[in-house]
Amino acid sequence: MDLTLNQANSYPVSIPLYIQIAEGLIAQIASGELTPQDRLPSERELSEELGVTRMTLRRALGVLESQGLIIRVHGVGTYIAEPKIERQMEKVFRFSSKMQERGFNPGAKIISSERIVADRALSMKLALLDSSPVYSILRLRSINKEPVMLESYAIPEERFPGLDRYDLEGRSIYEVMEIEYNVSILRARQSFEPVIATTFEAELLNIPVGDALMLEKRLSYDEDNIPIEYGVDRYRGDRFRFVTEAEPLDL
Amino acid sequence: MDLTLNQANSYPVSIPLYIQIAEGLIAQIASGELTPQDRLPSERELSEELGVTRMTLRRALGVLESQGLIIRVHGVGTYIAEPKIERQMEKVFRFSSKMQERGFNPGAKIISSERIVADRALSMKLALLDSSPVYSILRLRSINKEPVMLESYAIPEERFPGLDRYDLEGRSIYEVMEIEYNVSILRARQSFEPVIATTFEAELLNIPVGDALMLEKRLSYDEDNIPIEYGVDRYRGDRFRFVTEAEPLDL
Repeated sequence: MDLTLNQANSYPVSIPLYIQIAEGLIAQIASGELTPQDRLPSERELSEELGVTRMTLRRALGVLESQGLIIRVHGVGTYIAEPKIERQMEKVFRFSSKMQERGFNPGAKIISSERIVADRALSMKLALLDSSPVYSILRLRSINKEPVMLESYAIPEERFPGLDRYDLEGRSIYEVMEIEYNVSILRARQSFEPVIATTFEAELLNIPVGDALMLEKRLSYDEDNIPIEYGVDRYRGDRFRFVTEAEPLDL
Repeated sequence: MDLTLNQANSYPVSIPLYIQIAEGLIAQIASGELTPQDRLPSERELSEELGVTRMTLRRALGVLESQGLIIRVHGVGTYIAEPKIERQMEKVFRFSSKMQERGFNPGAKIISSERIVADRALSMKLALLDSSPVYSILRLRSINKEPVMLESYAIPEERFPGLDRYDLEGRSIYEVMEIEYNVSILRARQSFEPVIATTFEAELLNIPVGDALMLEKRLSYDEDNIPIEYGVDRYRGDRFRFVTEAEPLDL
């Protein structure tokens, strides 16, 4: 493993050394010189090899860790992380089928499933009368038994009566909507925000509090353009990357 | 200000109380009952009103803060944050014109501008020979003098000789490409990842270390489908939300 600084020395002085070191390592991961599951040398060896103090090295590794590029296992070592799973943003996401396509074994666990009464904000989103009954489902998704995403669904009972009777750990909710209720999603309006994991989310997702998550909020419409699902999902930032193609400049 | 729990009481017991409190407050912001710049009552008043301990309230407010929904000013109080700026993801983003459309005063400050030699990873991305010269520009963007985004550009010199001679604090880089070099961006491949702000980023963006940022990486192509720009941008998560429309389910 040749851990050189690459072009880092050509950076102007206003960029701190640890950022230059981090960028050099990031470039080596991007180019494939460092590959997933490679173990990095010890902090002592690596700081000597790069000619920087251990403090500088540690801050550089902190940058890589904050981007989910390395995994530090206490008392064991530091490893290059698996590449993140790419989610296409311009398509409604079907977790189970997409994970299976990638060769992963997807799982689902219901954390809570309740019939609630929609408050004003939710009624407005779903175009319901105030106090309409809604299924509120919190489901934890995993791949190869590792929790990676937390889903929260709010689905109107009047469109999907008895939805909570189905096996929503074994089946896709969208598939149940299609097969059992003959309702398909035509389109969805999605928003994405980076957030920090709370204690609740961190415990369920088995990550440290303060790690980065992608918060997705989604309002999905059926073929008559009627809203049928409001979803709030949290993806582990160290496992997912969100990709899309941008069209000609919007002048 | 009527700070009630809304439907929070109907949550199942497996969801912690502070999450229920937080969801109730988030719903009140979403529905407009709490509006930007509203000041929340003191922690003592608010915890009494909601009938929870101050510890529970503090953890609930932590959830809102982690999503950029409230701003806590030490010794002054807690305020509802301005709504986030929405960025359409399916269009190449033009910061200056988009911010002006929204009535903001956009700014740009060059943090560093260097002519560097592309390393292997960058050469591959930009389809250049190894060691080709590239302009590497780090620029801080602001709205109404507040820093909100950090841009890093890598642009091949052979396509844009002398690019660094132009006033890139006063002008849009894309506009300089179009007007001075007659090169337009046809499309861009973009990825988005939630990350944690490092010390370097936090200092430039004037936010606490550990806040959530959206990391965008972008490879832009000209009308002949030749890559002309590799960009890495960091957006403050408390100021931006990324929106897109998703198309029919991808089966």
